[in-house]
Amino acid sequence: MRSDAGGGDPVIDFYFDFFSPYGYFAAMQIERLAERYQRPLEWHAMLLGISVVKVMGLKPLLETPLKGEYILHDVPRLAALYGIPFRMPSRRIDSLPPARAFCWVKQHWPGQAAAFAKHLYCAYFQEDRDIGNPAVLAELAGEQGLEGRELRAAIDSQTIKQALRDSVSAALERGVFGAPSFVVDGQLIWGSDRLWMLEHWLAHGAWPEPGVRQD
Amino acid sequence: MRSDAGGGDPVIDFYFDFFSPYGYFAAMQIERLAERYQRPLEWHAMLLGISVVKVMGLKPLLETPLKGEYILHDVPRLAALYGIPFRMPSRRIDSLPPARAFCWVKQHWPGQAAAFAKHLYCAYFQEDRDIGNPAVLAELAGEQGLEGRELRAAIDSQTIKQALRDSVSAALERGVFGAPSFVVDGQLIWGSDRLWMLEHWLAHGAWPEPGVRQD
Repeated sequence: MRSDAGGGDPVIDFYFDFFSPYGYFAAMQIERLAERYQRPLEWHAMLLGISVVKVMGLKPLLETPLKGEYILHDVPRLAALYGIPFRMPSRRIDSLPPARAFCWVKQHWPGQAAAFAKHLYCAYFQEDRDIGNPAVLAELAGEQGLEGRELRAAIDSQTIKQALRDSVSAALERGVFGAPSFVVDGQLIWGSDRLWMLEHWLAHGAWPEPGVRQD
Repeated sequence: MRSDAGGGDPVIDFYFDFFSPYGYFAAMQIERLAERYQRPLEWHAMLLGISVVKVMGLKPLLETPLKGEYILHDVPRLAALYGIPFRMPSRRIDSLPPARAFCWVKQHWPGQAAAFAKHLYCAYFQEDRDIGNPAVLAELAGEQGLEGRELRAAIDSQTIKQALRDSVSAALERGVFGAPSFVVDGQLIWGSDRLWMLEHWLAHGAWPEPGVRQD
């Protein structure tokens, strides 16, 4: 069952939402995987508020009865199992400002976009900084050697607002609904706990024949 | 971070819904895990129509835009990766009749309940049999050496209806919302793709210290 996408685009597309701890876990692991299989990696800011709430018609995860409580219990143990530093943030954030900030960095300094995204994730999930706040985002950009002073105007500009809208629309058109998600060779894989599946694809370029175990 | 539940109930509680292919995948793997760690295993029929739709206020999975399509794509590749025989059923089923049939078997012949559940799952996900149909359920019970003729009356009885209601309520009270789910030593773990997490717990009885990888 080899993919029809053979010979096509080698990129791994990585979709993430800044408010999601599962996105953070994937962000901390995905580059190692891409390097191991020598695949280029492209980072895409996603907005679950659009995909999950508006398109799928569901509630925000943390406001969903039972599941919200489960997630608060699940996230710290996953961090420990992955060996990733983690502190539960004391506040929820609106991921629109950091997603726009990411688009701005990606547009102007594409080579620094991944490092900037990881810097925001670490600020939120390790240092409890308020990455939903444009002033904090400007500081964080400055820490990465970017023109932090320009960030606040940039994230209010029509160009950047439209860039993020286009990015989210393109994700939805590919069927991406959750985050983190990965698309490689036409295969959509959803979830930070499915990196093993992404790795299987990168290693084999195919799924096993049905009914035959392939370790 | 050892569990407070030490010295308590050694049982692994396994919650499943008969319509779910992910439940089928877990059902085909969970016994081996329980045996390896010498833990008793108790099977519980769950109804996602109650937990997901009524309590959580979400839509049925397959009727959720984007996610429904993803699942149809995800299930065959997971079956192949797990090395589990799988044929996409040609019809959806109402999982109420098989869940009641399971409760009836569990009440009268508890030692045969797990084998009966697996027999139904294999009938649906390997042989495309209509396990939502009481006549088919009676046949399947007969194949397992049970009194298939009594099944149809049993699943319409108040006793069995109440037994299933009680079972689902008890699951919800423990915070179980998805299926398959596992509860062991007070730890709730959701998803057929989290058996590795359940195994970690069974092997260690604890999660790793935060920030320290433990392979």
